[in-house]
Amino acid sequence: MPDTTTTLQVLKDAMARFVAERDWQQFHSPKNLVMGLSVEAAELMEHFLWIDNDASRQVTQDARKLGEVADEMADVACYLLALSNTLGIDLSDAITAKLVKNAPKYPAEKYRGQYRLEEEPKSK
Amino acid sequence: MPDTTTTLQVLKDAMARFVAERDWQQFHSPKNLVMGLSVEAAELMEHFLWIDNDASRQVTQDARKLGEVADEMADVACYLLALSNTLGIDLSDAITAKLVKNAPKYPAEKYRGQYRLEEEPKSK
Amino acid sequence: MPDTTTTLQVLKDAMARFVAERDWQQFHSPKNLVMGLSVEAAELMEHFLWIDNDASRQVTQDARKLGEVADEMADVACYLLALSNTLGIDLSDAITAKLVKNAPKYPAEKYRGQYRLEEEPKSK
Amino acid sequence: MPDTTTTLQVLKDAMARFVAERDWQQFHSPKNLVMGLSVEAAELMEHFLWIDNDASRQVTQDARKLGEVADEMADVACYLLALSNTLGIDLSDAITAKLVKNAPKYPAEKYRGQYRLEEEPKSK
Repeated sequence: MPDTTTTLQVLKDAMARFVAERDWQQFHSPKNLVMGLSVEAAELMEHFLWIDNDASRQVTQDARKLGEVADEMADVACYLLALSNTLGIDLSDAITAKLVKNAPKYPAEKYRGQYRLEEEPKSK
Repeated sequence: MPDTTTTLQVLKDAMARFVAERDWQQFHSPKNLVMGLSVEAAELMEHFLWIDNDASRQVTQDARKLGEVADEMADVACYLLALSNTLGIDLSDAITAKLVKNAPKYPAEKYRGQYRLEEEPKSK
Repeated sequence: MPDTTTTLQVLKDAMARFVAERDWQQFHSPKNLVMGLSVEAAELMEHFLWIDNDASRQVTQDARKLGEVADEMADVACYLLALSNTLGIDLSDAITAKLVKNAPKYPAEKYRGQYRLEEEPKSK
Repeated sequence: MPDTTTTLQVLKDAMARFVAERDWQQFHSPKNLVMGLSVEAAELMEHFLWIDNDASRQVTQDARKLGEVADEMADVACYLLALSNTLGIDLSDAITAKLVKNAPKYPAEKYRGQYRLEEEPKSK
């Protein structure tokens, strides 16, 4: 089921079945799921903890390591799918809306090659 | 673009365009992206910080709050899509593989209604 | 070395020695250390993932579990001490300054028994 | 109150007073506090998100930025102190025990200049 043909709904449904088969909806409160998501994000970070940015790009050359990283990414994704199911959120709509919202916030001509504007004060 | 008809590839491509238009690939090392993912996961957690699990489920009754949560979920998703692009990982495959791998790890008949087995020692 | 008699400096020095003996200062960039801190915070969260707030308070009744939690708290603390060392930050001063700054931000008479004011808009 | 003369207990007591004055003990379940700790760790990470390790070390040259970082570190520390108070944990003891435990786990002669051994398999 590659990305080119798999819809988000198919993945959300697969996740929902996994949860329902175990009667785990009772544990899937938004609070618990966002905690779990954050824990998985940290496990993903652990793979890149002591290295530089350049070295982190080299993970693509190490099939075993890349597989481990993909595995952690799947964990993060599963929590996100489960949270979408619990909250009834359409994730594709949310992502699309976000990109539309961020486009004028980060005008391409101003932000080209910069992650923030030189004169910009810290954002929060 | 609802979840029922949107493939992961369409979303990954939209994200890739957003990044390329700003020449941001140089910042999108795996190390930076997993940090960003974790930061967004924390912003998502912040919405559920001081409340109980039951109260966290009530977010579905508050349209404005639910919109804010969807917005943060989109941020998490965008980092995940960007990381998939940087690493060349097929996310749908990874998620499907994960569910297949987890099914025998958490047999439905044993884990029904339990997030862990009573006698199970801590996992790490 | 209990909290009643141990200064932060004694702990910072112990951490600095541990790092110097292994010649690990080269890995202790602020970027790496904050990632490590966040990873340890997640490991601490994992202990309280699927339970309610009330149940989380019961950890004090389980000596083995409490020991595991203390162990993870020490990991978080060690990264914080290491970061203070790398950056030359006086942590006691920073904590005291923070409490002084937060006192008028959260006036006791207004916030008593509330983690935020009813009419308060979301903070960010 | 510098690190050279401030004990952990003094800081824990200051934190406990801040919490008691607002009757916030009811919100300070371990589950909530570890979530808050993780959120603050992420806010600390945000300062070092898009830069390299080398650049992150330059924060010491920027007084304003360094102040912001110290401020976030204080937030992390406050949650750790609050959690120690809720759980009745002696943090100095836990930190000291951790360093004693980690010394033979990472023998100086083997780990000098290496954050992990070459042949070591991934730890989890």
